[in-house]
Amino acid sequence: MSTPQWVRALKPGSPQGSELLEQERSNSNVNVDALSHFLFTKEGIARKQRVLKVLQSEKVFDKSQNYFAGRIDRFETALARAKKLRQLAVRNGWTQDDRLTANELISEPGPYGLHESMFLITLRDQGNAEQHEKFLRPAEEYKYIGCYAQTELGHGSNVRGLETTATWNADDKTFTIHSPTLTASKWWIGSLGRTANHAVVMAQLIVNGKSLGPHPFVIQIRDMKTHEPLENIHVGDIGPKFGYNTMDNGFLLFNNFKVPHISMLARFSSVDPKTNKYSRPSSPSLIYGTLTWVRSTIVMQAGGVLARGVTIATRYCAVRRQFQDRDAPEWEKGENQVLNYTTVQIRLLPLLATTFALHFTGKGMMALYAASQKKMSQDVGKVGAPERGPGPEETHSGSDLLADLHATSCGLKSLASYTAVEGLEVCRRACGGHGYSSFSGIGPWYADYLPTATWEGDNYMLTQQVARYLLKSARSVLKGNEATNDTTAILSNFLSRQDTGAAFDILGNDSELVAAFAWRAAFLTFEALKHRDEQKKPWNSLLVDFYRLSRAHSQYMVVKNFYETLQASPDSSDGLDPETLGLMHKLFRLYALHTLEAEASEFYTSSAVTVRQIQLARTNAVMKLLEELRPHAVRLVDSWGFPDWQLDSSLGRYDGKVYEDMFHRASELNPLNRVTVDPYPDSPTLFKKNEASALKSKL
Amino acid sequence: MSTPQWVRALKPGSPQGSELLEQERSNSNVNVDALSHFLFTKEGIARKQRVLKVLQSEKVFDKSQNYFAGRIDRFETALARAKKLRQLAVRNGWTQDDRLTANELISEPGPYGLHESMFLITLRDQGNAEQHEKFLRPAEEYKYIGCYAQTELGHGSNVRGLETTATWNADDKTFTIHSPTLTASKWWIGSLGRTANHAVVMAQLIVNGKSLGPHPFVIQIRDMKTHEPLENIHVGDIGPKFGYNTMDNGFLLFNNFKVPHISMLARFSSVDPKTNKYSRPSSPSLIYGTLTWVRSTIVMQAGGVLARGVTIATRYCAVRRQFQDRDAPEWEKGENQVLNYTTVQIRLLPLLATTFALHFTGKGMMALYAASQKKMSQDVGKVGAPERGPGPEETHSGSDLLADLHATSCGLKSLASYTAVEGLEVCRRACGGHGYSSFSGIGPWYADYLPTATWEGDNYMLTQQVARYLLKSARSVLKGNEATNDTTAILSNFLSRQDTGAAFDILGNDSELVAAFAWRAAFLTFEALKHRDEQKKPWNSLLVDFYRLSRAHSQYMVVKNFYETLQASPDSSDGLDPETLGLMHKLFRLYALHTLEAEASEFYTSSAVTVRQIQLARTNAVMKLLEELRPHAVRLVDSWGFPDWQLDSSLGRYDGKVYEDMFHRASELNPLNRVTVDPYPDSPTLFKKNEASALKSKL
Repeated sequence: MSTPQWVRALKPGSPQGSELLEQERSNSNVNVDALSHFLFTKEGIARKQRVLKVLQSEKVFDKSQNYFAGRIDRFETALARAKKLRQLAVRNGWTQDDRLTANELISEPGPYGLHESMFLITLRDQGNAEQHEKFLRPAEEYKYIGCYAQTELGHGSNVRGLETTATWNADDKTFTIHSPTLTASKWWIGSLGRTANHAVVMAQLIVNGKSLGPHPFVIQIRDMKTHEPLENIHVGDIGPKFGYNTMDNGFLLFNNFKVPHISMLARFSSVDPKTNKYSRPSSPSLIYGTLTWVRSTIVMQAGGVLARGVTIATRYCAVRRQFQDRDAPEWEKGENQVLNYTTVQIRLLPLLATTFALHFTGKGMMALYAASQKKMSQDVGKVGAPERGPGPEETHSGSDLLADLHATSCGLKSLASYTAVEGLEVCRRACGGHGYSSFSGIGPWYADYLPTATWEGDNYMLTQQVARYLLKSARSVLKGNEATNDTTAILSNFLSRQDTGAAFDILGNDSELVAAFAWRAAFLTFEALKHRDEQKKPWNSLLVDFYRLSRAHSQYMVVKNFYETLQASPDSSDGLDPETLGLMHKLFRLYALHTLEAEASEFYTSSAVTVRQIQLARTNAVMKLLEELRPHAVRLVDSWGFPDWQLDSSLGRYDGKVYEDMFHRASELNPLNRVTVDPYPDSPTLFKKNEASALKSKL
Repeated sequence: MSTPQWVRALKPGSPQGSELLEQERSNSNVNVDALSHFLFTKEGIARKQRVLKVLQSEKVFDKSQNYFAGRIDRFETALARAKKLRQLAVRNGWTQDDRLTANELISEPGPYGLHESMFLITLRDQGNAEQHEKFLRPAEEYKYIGCYAQTELGHGSNVRGLETTATWNADDKTFTIHSPTLTASKWWIGSLGRTANHAVVMAQLIVNGKSLGPHPFVIQIRDMKTHEPLENIHVGDIGPKFGYNTMDNGFLLFNNFKVPHISMLARFSSVDPKTNKYSRPSSPSLIYGTLTWVRSTIVMQAGGVLARGVTIATRYCAVRRQFQDRDAPEWEKGENQVLNYTTVQIRLLPLLATTFALHFTGKGMMALYAASQKKMSQDVGKVGAPERGPGPEETHSGSDLLADLHATSCGLKSLASYTAVEGLEVCRRACGGHGYSSFSGIGPWYADYLPTATWEGDNYMLTQQVARYLLKSARSVLKGNEATNDTTAILSNFLSRQDTGAAFDILGNDSELVAAFAWRAAFLTFEALKHRDEQKKPWNSLLVDFYRLSRAHSQYMVVKNFYETLQASPDSSDGLDPETLGLMHKLFRLYALHTLEAEASEFYTSSAVTVRQIQLARTNAVMKLLEELRPHAVRLVDSWGFPDWQLDSSLGRYDGKVYEDMFHRASELNPLNRVTVDPYPDSPTLFKKNEASALKSKL
């Protein structure tokens, strides 16, 4: 549809969005570049610019039809992009960091996604030298394209419940892979539906009639030339989803399918083809380490994921104007920027604080992970932290550092992904009606991010692991054992001060604010312990308490990490200037006090604070912080440094040309406007003219 | 893709979903039919059956490709369905109720949606006799197909800020309709994008250079034969949205477009073509009545909207099994039904209670509306309740009944739609990974329902109206005026007992539980009044408090309506049997106590309850109610009576054949499985085989 000349001549009503954002930026002196460097390092920012340039010069990455295309076309484009990305990586000699940056900028899941992550990682970590030669090399060269097939139609978090079997045949030295039921079908497997020709399949190993638990097998599933499924394999895409539709999540069934001995990944456990004997895993903790690492990256990313939504909503709420302030004098005409309303501020500014809180917590986790890796290489074999689902409750072994990392990663993964998911939706709604348009850029992003709350451990299931660890720590402290890490330290502190009481000065002193969070977590830990050990309550009846406990502990971790990052800033080489650091302290207080108020009843009950303090926190402290932070909101989101190309949002444009962009996309890019309808109920024709159908394969 | 024979022979792992649901139903003696009758009346249930049969016999309503199709195909199908529905309505002589039932069963917005609602209603309510003849008659016969164009690109809730102008031309007795800026473009207008040939356009009326505020004009926008836009009109679809993609929401711009005098809907206000004088609206309250009614229906529907999600999640959580209960004895093998975990119960069962709470509250609202209609016809002209956005704060006039209805409808619309939106997403996540599949039926339904939280008054904006009303009522009570309705009654009661204190027996007595909600709402009202009238705080600084206040008042209304419905049941002809009534009382308590606990800090602060009571409410009362209600969960959702055809959900099937249905849709209906990919990065081909492209126009 062509836009008539008289429409092209129109401008939005005044003031222009671009003027409003300019004004916002001139009203604050936050040093955006310095804050960006503090968040991402100079090197990280330069990388982003460099990769962005490469991507923007390739036509296949043009995003203008993303929001319009249907599933098949989106998948086709995503495949083309995945291929081009691989070519670019080879041609430009991209590092792993370069490739991750490219994925972030493109911002859509691609059909090579699971090949490039779990397939390669599993082959590398769990294959032996021979298997590296046979599987890993061709996989690294994209001759084998793979996926990681664990989850089944009837079995998610509980890996022990998997139904797919791998039975050792002593006679011909093969395994028979079999799906005995429909619920045994592999399901949700990324890159499997249409793309992969190989899969790492988790199956129950059976040797001499004895079931030995789930083990990984590398299996060719499609013909290397025709790409058709091999005989006795049924494989396909599982259909459309709420998001993630550029990915071909797949299903996979085996009908007594034989694979050779080498298919079983044998670094840690294996079947000896001569003796037909099975040998046990030497160190399951190394495997668990990978998943703990995955969770840490989820925490790290959650801040950035949320920051996209906050950036879009904050900029748009500075451009959008609705109603006059009812207390404004008569002579002050014009509508008020939506960002000036406290009902908008109370939704967006605490989320802005949360983006930094999660980012710093993620950084802290990565440091903890690096330390644990070092530690782990020192005591391989000592640790057996349970992975998914409830494991043994009382028999926790291994170093305190690893146990702490495992528990922390579970709780924080749950809190961080939940916070990002909820926060994105708050941002979308804060944009009013236009938030519902795909052009807002928030809805599609939210829909793609949602599964993070489920995968790598369901957010509810995971909290049991945190609770189990905290209960164990509390038992140790009660026995009089000395504190060996932060968790046992806060529990000991609580025990020693329990009778004299707490009374933290949450409004006057930042470290006391952190201490109040520690106190509440410790209180809930001992409450839960009482229920379990003294009152002998059933585990199932305590799950809700455990969920709250995990949340409380994780919120303490976030508050602590935020605080400690700011404390360390003046001593660091890329430290913040005093003014920006002062603002960051305000964001810290806003995050902490807003969270404290939302969870008020636990803080009362634990006597960490008084009712009066909470009231003051809400009516005075939080409202005052909103007022003080308001002028800096736009510059603070600018410091996250999202290029417009990455956001792909009319509402979140850096230049504030919101309405021009909305209109351009609707009037000029929208393929539905190429059909002319026959609107009358009794006429059999639907579309009188359908330019779109000819174009459909390109939509 | 064809499913091989060996796959067809597979069954899900035991126990079968069908067995599990049978077992659930045999473990409870809830009289499903009786409860259904109580909710919907026998007549309503018979109507649903009758209409369902008609729809299922028409091929165009087949839903099997709904989740797969792209935007243009979905819109095309929706248009075909809209036409067929109109034909069926004529052929079968359907009543308004029959048509609404058909829409509910089809469960997708259609291109005639705004024609059949706001366009016809506005012509009827605001047109004079001549205009009824000229516009309403042909519209009723679908010769004119219309929409209601109010919102603009730059202007949502604030109707006074609209930029489109309608200037009276005294010389040739016409109006010039004009869009002076890009932000003046009409936007989001349902049925406008591709379907309508007429629009009711809200524009700022200008007579003799004087601006007289927004008024409605009926305007032809497309040619009656070619359906192309008329000259100097630019109109089209606004593009894809998070949901609602079967609807063609549109934009519309005018370039000095002339319309005759009769275009201005003249029942309440008009321009005299002889004198060129404007006469004022005789009764704006009649217009506002329509929107109050729309809000009441939103409250009524919210219970049913949420009930779909609760039905799906409850059934699936009874079929899905994960992990063993860790306290279960060794000999008790097999995984546990997910519905047995308290972390699942605490999410789903309070929502189940909420479905009934909202349904009964909706019924109460409709009764109040009927009463107000009667009252209104008695005192036309006395009332000027402000519609959208902040109106005059101090000058509220009109009968107490109408003011109460208006405030109640605003607050409850906000609470009910918010609760349904949030609750649906909780249901989706409670389904674990499979909740993310479109086949869950929750995601698409959620996405289509979402805008309800924004339209007919943004959920945040609306709460200001509630607060304004409550403040006014409190001022009246403080002056010593007698209580004239429930709101002033609870405020008076609070004032008289304020000093002696409350101490409600929330755990032992249901009416005290209701009283605690009233107390908290009254407390917050007087707090807000203090801030505004004594401390003279700026209105903007109080918006967050107002939001909380509105929420508190609306929750009180819901608790009260739920309680009163159950109290009245034994005396009603279709009253519940004592056993089911007992269960409903438990659901009432669960809703009230769970809400009370979630909002604990306001209940403490107001001294309605003690900290100890809240603790007991959580750890004892709520957990015990979950245990008692758990066995009846499946039968309770059955009583909502959703046919499988309406739910269109693999997970929510009445017969529990969840996995069979998931598999069927993925393996047999999914068009993506008709393409074969060329997976290698260096090969230029993307799809080796593409059966789908030939079929695309049918997808």
